[in-house]
Amino acid sequence: MEDRILQKLQTFFVEANEEEKQALERVIDAVIRKQTKQNGSYIGGILQTSRKVLDDLTYEITIPNTELIQNPLKIVHGGITATLLDSAMGSVVHNVLPHDKAAVTTEMKINYVAPGIGKEFRCVAQMIHRGSKICVTEGRVFRDDGTLIAHATGSFFIIDRPNKK
Amino acid sequence: MEDRILQKLQTFFVEANEEEKQALERVIDAVIRKQTKQNGSYIGGILQTSRKVLDDLTYEITIPNTELIQNPLKIVHGGITATLLDSAMGSVVHNVLPHDKAAVTTEMKINYVAPGIGKEFRCVAQMIHRGSKICVTEGRVFRDDGTLIAHATGSFFIIDRPNKK
Amino acid sequence: MEDRILQKLQTFFVEANEEEKQALERVIDAVIRKQTKQNGSYIGGILQTSRKVLDDLTYEITIPNTELIQNPLKIVHGGITATLLDSAMGSVVHNVLPHDKAAVTTEMKINYVAPGIGKEFRCVAQMIHRGSKICVTEGRVFRDDGTLIAHATGSFFIIDRPNKK
Amino acid sequence: MEDRILQKLQTFFVEANEEEKQALERVIDAVIRKQTKQNGSYIGGILQTSRKVLDDLTYEITIPNTELIQNPLKIVHGGITATLLDSAMGSVVHNVLPHDKAAVTTEMKINYVAPGIGKEFRCVAQMIHRGSKICVTEGRVFRDDGTLIAHATGSFFIIDRPNKK
Repeated sequence: MEDRILQKLQTFFVEANEEEKQALERVIDAVIRKQTKQNGSYIGGILQTSRKVLDDLTYEITIPNTELIQNPLKIVHGGITATLLDSAMGSVVHNVLPHDKAAVTTEMKINYVAPGIGKEFRCVAQMIHRGSKICVTEGRVFRDDGTLIAHATGSFFIIDRPNKK
Repeated sequence: MEDRILQKLQTFFVEANEEEKQALERVIDAVIRKQTKQNGSYIGGILQTSRKVLDDLTYEITIPNTELIQNPLKIVHGGITATLLDSAMGSVVHNVLPHDKAAVTTEMKINYVAPGIGKEFRCVAQMIHRGSKICVTEGRVFRDDGTLIAHATGSFFIIDRPNKK
Repeated sequence: MEDRILQKLQTFFVEANEEEKQALERVIDAVIRKQTKQNGSYIGGILQTSRKVLDDLTYEITIPNTELIQNPLKIVHGGITATLLDSAMGSVVHNVLPHDKAAVTTEMKINYVAPGIGKEFRCVAQMIHRGSKICVTEGRVFRDDGTLIAHATGSFFIIDRPNKK
Repeated sequence: MEDRILQKLQTFFVEANEEEKQALERVIDAVIRKQTKQNGSYIGGILQTSRKVLDDLTYEITIPNTELIQNPLKIVHGGITATLLDSAMGSVVHNVLPHDKAAVTTEMKINYVAPGIGKEFRCVAQMIHRGSKICVTEGRVFRDDGTLIAHATGSFFIIDRPNKK
């Protein structure tokens, strides 16, 4: 497999422009970040998520704006904004659960209010209602100039955590 | 840059297990697919989207289930399902617009109803209401065993297409 | 109380125009419909709901368009459309539950796509996903000319039915 | 019509219990409140809405809990909560519009988090995003004991106000 990969890269580099080379390095870094446990998932690595608990009921995830997450118009893809919101809102809920419980998203609604451009995106999520079966949360995504680009609410159903072997 | 990338890869391969090597090849393929215009965006390349117009008001996008799009529980990340739905619902709208118009997502709501596992995910989107200013669409995502995993509705605001130079 | 009510009516009739008299008769009929068990609630009486099971997983509620349910622009109030959708979607779920279970709305999202005018509104709701804990449903509201005015999805959480004494 | 109405009332009073008589007086009061312009619509009269501008971007509507707005389980109907939210969120938007503009609800999503019981319901709505074409708002409904019962977000499309004659 290693030979095949190196061969693909040789072909790639012949035609690649600067943006494409940068994208290549970034996706390789993403896999390495997952390998070295800096991120818990490949998506986390691709998005370069950095996470922070602001307080018991507030959680923040920040990601840089890169070519990897943009649509052809160079604006962050609405699905990436959704990924950020789902992750941050889910983290708010997981943060208050005992270790034998987990939360699964049952629904999420997003309002997109401004184009996602700039250097980075910061998502702040907080608890709206902490129920024993269902938690409801809210999330907001901001550009680095402070502009709100998206607002979401999401519901999470509390389940027993699947046993890991 | 090329030397630096190759050096990172050497280090990576020393410790990499099979899944990690597969993930690496997949992200490199993603960038190549964007380079060779098989996909219009890096996200499209990472998701390996394959697109099909079913009829004037129905659009289908299928993606394989890979380690790249899963959360730590090996279930497809809700944000990826959202990306798929946003793309397919947006395509339904773009499909009926004249060339000088574009559509931007103003809101999307997703209900997640079953875990995303299996070989691939198929998203079918269709028009609910075709307005002159706002179009409303619906999307459903299915596993390869036919189980519905998510249902969404989304609104798209029609704008003049930004001029490309 | 009866004397006080009759006195209020005497005053009312002095100034009342035809629409106001009609509204008065309609609200009185609403209370009578509840009294005589033609409707299960006063709201049902005010809306003059008529209900029909279309099949195991589809439910229809029709209401006439009256002055009682309109906003000042003579268009049906969005909250009334929501009431109709919530009732019909909830009925789809109740229809498949055993007698010792009930369903409560946990969330509902409505897209309003055309003004609610005309003679009556017909809401057709159906099951999207029948889960053991949460059911997801869809509803559409049509004018008598067939135009879709609203589309909704809603989630219902299944609970043990509270004991009636 | 007056004779017919009075005859209906005579029949009604023969069998009516106290709750039914109270409901009757309340619906008659509702029509009178519309007649005397204390409320702008019959629904407003039935709900007994009382309105307050809290500040430029925040609006409050309070309604008493009455038998008229409850479902058969004596809990406020989710559609009534929706009506309250739609009204308050719409008012936030109208409040900032010039006189020749109006706002129509394009979508609304509500999370119901606790049963609506108690003496009254207070809805506080505020602006999330004030756009030139679409405004996005948020609303919360509280019981008189301070418990949140519902949270909503809604979008409003700005249109030219229809001319009144």
